Amino acid sequence: MPLGQRVGDKSDSRYCGVETDFIDDMPHVLTYNLSGGFDFVVAPLVDPSYRPSFPTNSASEGFVLPVAASDLIVSPAQWSSHVVGKISSWIDLDSEDEKLRMDSETALKQEISWASHLSVQACLLPPPKKGYCSNYARSVNQILQGITNMQLWLRLPLVKSGSMENESVDASYDSLSGILYDSWETWNTFRLLCEHHVQLCVALDIQSSLPSINSLLRWFGEPVRAAIIHTDAFLTNARGYPCLSKRHQKLITAFFDLCFQIVISGSLIHSIPQERLEVFPANDNDSLGEGAPLRHELKPYLEYVAYLYQRMDPLSEQERFELNYRDFLQAPLQPLMDNLEAQTYETFEKDTVKYNQYQRAVCKALLDRVSDEQASSSNTVLMVVGAGRGPLVRASLQAAEEVGRKIKVYAVEKNPNAVVTLHSLIKLEGWESMVTVISCDMRCWDAPEKADILVSELLGSFGDNELSPECLDGAQRFLKPDGISIPSSYTSYLQPITTTKLYNDVKANKDLAHMETPYVVKLHKVARLAQAQPVFTFRHPEFSPNRSNQRYVKLEFEIPPDTGSTLVHGFAGYFDAVLYGDIYLSIEPSKPTPTMFSWFPIFFPLRTPVYVPSGSHLEVQFWRCCAPAKVWYEWCVTSPITLPVHNVNGRSYWTRIFGFKTMMPRPSTIAVKKRSTCSVFAVPVYPKDVNWMT
Amino acid sequence: MPLGQRVGDKSDSRYCGVETDFIDDMPHVLTYNLSGGFDFVVAPLVDPSYRPSFPTNSASEGFVLPVAASDLIVSPAQWSSHVVGKISSWIDLDSEDEKLRMDSETALKQEISWASHLSVQACLLPPPKKGYCSNYARSVNQILQGITNMQLWLRLPLVKSGSMENESVDASYDSLSGILYDSWETWNTFRLLCEHHVQLCVALDIQSSLPSINSLLRWFGEPVRAAIIHTDAFLTNARGYPCLSKRHQKLITAFFDLCFQIVISGSLIHSIPQERLEVFPANDNDSLGEGAPLRHELKPYLEYVAYLYQRMDPLSEQERFELNYRDFLQAPLQPLMDNLEAQTYETFEKDTVKYNQYQRAVCKALLDRVSDEQASSSNTVLMVVGAGRGPLVRASLQAAEEVGRKIKVYAVEKNPNAVVTLHSLIKLEGWESMVTVISCDMRCWDAPEKADILVSELLGSFGDNELSPECLDGAQRFLKPDGISIPSSYTSYLQPITTTKLYNDVKANKDLAHMETPYVVKLHKVARLAQAQPVFTFRHPEFSPNRSNQRYVKLEFEIPPDTGSTLVHGFAGYFDAVLYGDIYLSIEPSKPTPTMFSWFPIFFPLRTPVYVPSGSHLEVQFWRCCAPAKVWYEWCVTSPITLPVHNVNGRSYWTRIFGFKTMMPRPSTIAVKKRSTCSVFAVPVYPKDVNWMT
Repeated sequence: MPLGQRVGDKSDSRYCGVETDFIDDMPHVLTYNLSGGFDFVVAPLVDPSYRPSFPTNSASEGFVLPVAASDLIVSPAQWSSHVVGKISSWIDLDSEDEKLRMDSETALKQEISWASHLSVQACLLPPPKKGYCSNYARSVNQILQGITNMQLWLRLPLVKSGSMENESVDASYDSLSGILYDSWETWNTFRLLCEHHVQLCVALDIQSSLPSINSLLRWFGEPVRAAIIHTDAFLTNARGYPCLSKRHQKLITAFFDLCFQIVISGSLIHSIPQERLEVFPANDNDSLGEGAPLRHELKPYLEYVAYLYQRMDPLSEQERFELNYRDFLQAPLQPLMDNLEAQTYETFEKDTVKYNQYQRAVCKALLDRVSDEQASSSNTVLMVVGAGRGPLVRASLQAAEEVGRKIKVYAVEKNPNAVVTLHSLIKLEGWESMVTVISCDMRCWDAPEKADILVSELLGSFGDNELSPECLDGAQRFLKPDGISIPSSYTSYLQPITTTKLYNDVKANKDLAHMETPYVVKLHKVARLAQAQPVFTFRHPEFSPNRSNQRYVKLEFEIPPDTGSTLVHGFAGYFDAVLYGDIYLSIEPSKPTPTMFSWFPIFFPLRTPVYVPSGSHLEVQFWRCCAPAKVWYEWCVTSPITLPVHNVNGRSYWTRIFGFKTMMPRPSTIAVKKRSTCSVFAVPVYPKDVNWMT
Repeated sequence: MPLGQRVGDKSDSRYCGVETDFIDDMPHVLTYNLSGGFDFVVAPLVDPSYRPSFPTNSASEGFVLPVAASDLIVSPAQWSSHVVGKISSWIDLDSEDEKLRMDSETALKQEISWASHLSVQACLLPPPKKGYCSNYARSVNQILQGITNMQLWLRLPLVKSGSMENESVDASYDSLSGILYDSWETWNTFRLLCEHHVQLCVALDIQSSLPSINSLLRWFGEPVRAAIIHTDAFLTNARGYPCLSKRHQKLITAFFDLCFQIVISGSLIHSIPQERLEVFPANDNDSLGEGAPLRHELKPYLEYVAYLYQRMDPLSEQERFELNYRDFLQAPLQPLMDNLEAQTYETFEKDTVKYNQYQRAVCKALLDRVSDEQASSSNTVLMVVGAGRGPLVRASLQAAEEVGRKIKVYAVEKNPNAVVTLHSLIKLEGWESMVTVISCDMRCWDAPEKADILVSELLGSFGDNELSPECLDGAQRFLKPDGISIPSSYTSYLQPITTTKLYNDVKANKDLAHMETPYVVKLHKVARLAQAQPVFTFRHPEFSPNRSNQRYVKLEFEIPPDTGSTLVHGFAGYFDAVLYGDIYLSIEPSKPTPTMFSWFPIFFPLRTPVYVPSGSHLEVQFWRCCAPAKVWYEWCVTSPITLPVHNVNGRSYWTRIFGFKTMMPRPSTIAVKKRSTCSVFAVPVYPKDVNWMT
């Protein structure tokens, strides 16, 4: 039964498992543990004393694998819903003992083949016994090619240390903790050898002491499916009950949020005061299967985990809305391609935070431009470029009213459907005297006068990626030489991230184009490895005759030294924008505009993930390239290793600039869901080289 | 005119070029230099004082690029045969001066576009000005996408040093030699950014001092097209003539062998005693174009280079035979697939060295097995497995005669065509009483008696790769328990190599299978980065019941520290075999059997080249995997970075084992030329698990 009800949470993290020993009576094991409140068991499927090379086991005709139960005794449906197969922990494929190595390979293949036959959803692989794991990984990799649905969870202790300070939670780690420096390194080697196979996942053994936060965070970008908490790792509270340290509590809460499942392991080691406990009568099968279910000996631990789950804040409305977009790749918007639909306008218009910031910016601009003395005489010309259904018009008018300045608004919009709504709005609100609607493609408009203030909202997740610079370079022909552009500047940001999920999703397309395309995505299962750094900045207006929208930057990221080594799958991109003065919008993680939801981050993948050894820095180069008909980014890594330049000549991804006469063919279709909920109105965009005055 | 006539040498290294300054009269330049004995000029195509951003040059209508000559004045055929375009050396794409950077990008594109229009075969790119070169590489990479045939030669000084000990040969290197530590590093970064583009090559500036031999050797695996020797780098001999140091001489000779072209650069700085020199009258065009050609001022240098060329040994017959196979990928042989043709037998039988070794081995074995006392009474049973047209039969009979022992030979051969020849041979030689021909597939043969000595020649370039182990495991059922197998053991070897040519040839197939397949290849333009190490050893006979032909090894290569950093494209594979006692065959480079030509090395590619920083070691793992129907290798690199396991489950390449009844489908055809000149007779191969006694 689930740990609890949490509004909006439908994730697997509601289910809690328990690790059991081998008993050749699986129905008994299931009855006891499921009735005890657990949702699934992690149980050995084969007698751990079995060895393939024992004389009686060698391929003689009558040999039968000594299993816990067959698919006749427990149905495939039950195996599939309630059992994770635990592969024998004696298996050691990197032993120096050749016989043990050979036996291990045979047993591993037999056990996984058996598990696959039973239709279990996952098998738990024992942790590699040594620092190296190449032969183990090679063998698992061979197996992975032949199983279609089942996941393999590689069990690893959550440690990063060369010392013995971590208490062992399991006898099998005694030999390990002295040798193993950083279990993430083992994982990384293992999965690189297996080429990021999607069915290869991780189960982390939570120890009583935890490594540094930065090193823990690396796991947030990995395919962790389960966190196994041994009863050893629990403290005892004042009333004698098990509980976890504050750091453990925060970690488990984060795990819930990342949809990791909790598994309880070990035996009862807290002496619960008031209640009498019925201990699992392992050799007394007859007493089971009838009457009231026994209280499970690990119930106190389960109840504590359930308490942690139930204590979490419910998901906010915004979080529930974004839930379906988490780690979901969306094709980047091509501006000007299509007219937006009413539904999309409505979603955007709900982002009141964003429009409040615009209103504040217009207030400031009006106060700076028109003194109190001029307030009644001066009429400020304000143009909204890409007015849509009017939110920026409303914000501008409210600003003017707020500061007592008179304005004349031109609302320019090319989408005829939006213009209908805009007209209705103006009539409804009685704005006829103040607002002129220009139902026109900007490219054809001959403005009757010049503007004091140009208001636009053409920003993409990466700031300039939807061609706001090219757009405003063109639109500034309507602006007085001393006029104001809102926004007045914007900057893009980049941050290296680990994201196995997104890397695999990109790679699944099996072509170069997808590996060189940026995606809009609500990043969730992601490890952010360093502070984001500024990339490209644009300022408006920009009347310099030598202005260029090409950019080149080299970034060096220092990953905090206590993180350990990392794997970089790509870069998260963000932006911030100065609307006017100190009024800004931002989705950069260190200073986001709170509760603003119009933009998800952008993700620039790397064709090959880059391993950054502990203490090394990461050097990356980004270019914004411009040709007459298109704009694109190229990027590459030059340290610690050098990768090829990505997206050469915009061969895989570009953003189109419409010329006056020529229409470019659509870029090759990218088979991911089109973005529908984030960013920017479709506004005409102008080629940089066109002479706007003729 | 070529440097000289060298028997068998048809390579480009016969042609020598000269670097010239910009003169806007290209016919004049060509006449002077070609009549002076040079084969081509490396000449600027555009006035080096030109800058795109000069006001007069900005895209005004009347602007014309200030070129050396057009395609009307010098024909495309002449441009193509006699001119390498030299791109302006002021170009600096990684300058911190943004204007210079922008100008450089524009000029680079204009000059290369112009060169491409003229149909020159190559352009010489100026060396990167700084240690880093990312923006330069990005721009060149963009250009490379758009040119179809022309090569771009990146000019680089041949230096590896942090000190100033290298004399500068060109003013442009003054700023360079202090900063640049190792020009190979710059090259490596550049070409990795350009993703090993096949049209991106190298031209090396030879300095008066040379770095260590190991660091020089790295260039042998790179696409070097030219070595530019400045007159500064020449010494003066006793008679006042230019000459080169011994180390330089060896290097230039090696360059000839690798088909690098020599280019002379600079002015006459040796005062040649006896002859009066006519100096190129640059501003006196009228005096040219008629009468006898002037003696070229650089003629003494050209003559010295020609002397070095002519001094080389002529190519041996074996070298001339192998010339067409150099760096040419061949599909590995699938044993048992086809019967060999007479031509192939004939080629193999010419390898007298190999059969001499077999004869010596049989001699030793007979002497060990039969004492002098028993010589007249004992009749030794010797079976030749895979007798072909009889060379091993002949070697065995000659051995018996040599040591005065009596033998009875069974010659087992499945190819009925070869059996015809074998019968003729026996009749011709009068061997009827000693040799029994078994025209039979070994799989069907019921031997009438057991053998004392089993002679076979089933080895591939990598020893066991054509299934000699599986074969001899089966054939040993004919062998007495104390019988002798010739060969008695064999070992494979591996060695990391740089080989841009082979990597690009493999990659050109654009699929995974080719990147995971070993190839037989006569390695030539290759840098061997470390001593070869032993990999898998097999011994015969092997009567242990637990014998397995699976193998696993982890190799660690230490690259000599004075080499510097390297790029590993894959591994060269070799073998040696102990025929009997101290008689062996070997193609391992440190101890090859001299003039034996039956085997070329094997090449295991890596899907991604691995950069090994100076001082790091390279760790690689190799597996020999066996299934009932096939045998294959898997391999991976685990340090300094981890690559995916290659050829998982033999998905891309395997060697087939025929069962008794089932025939496996052919492995997917690999579109490279089938090996025809090297290795091994097609002999029946047996599945390991079949019980041979029934």
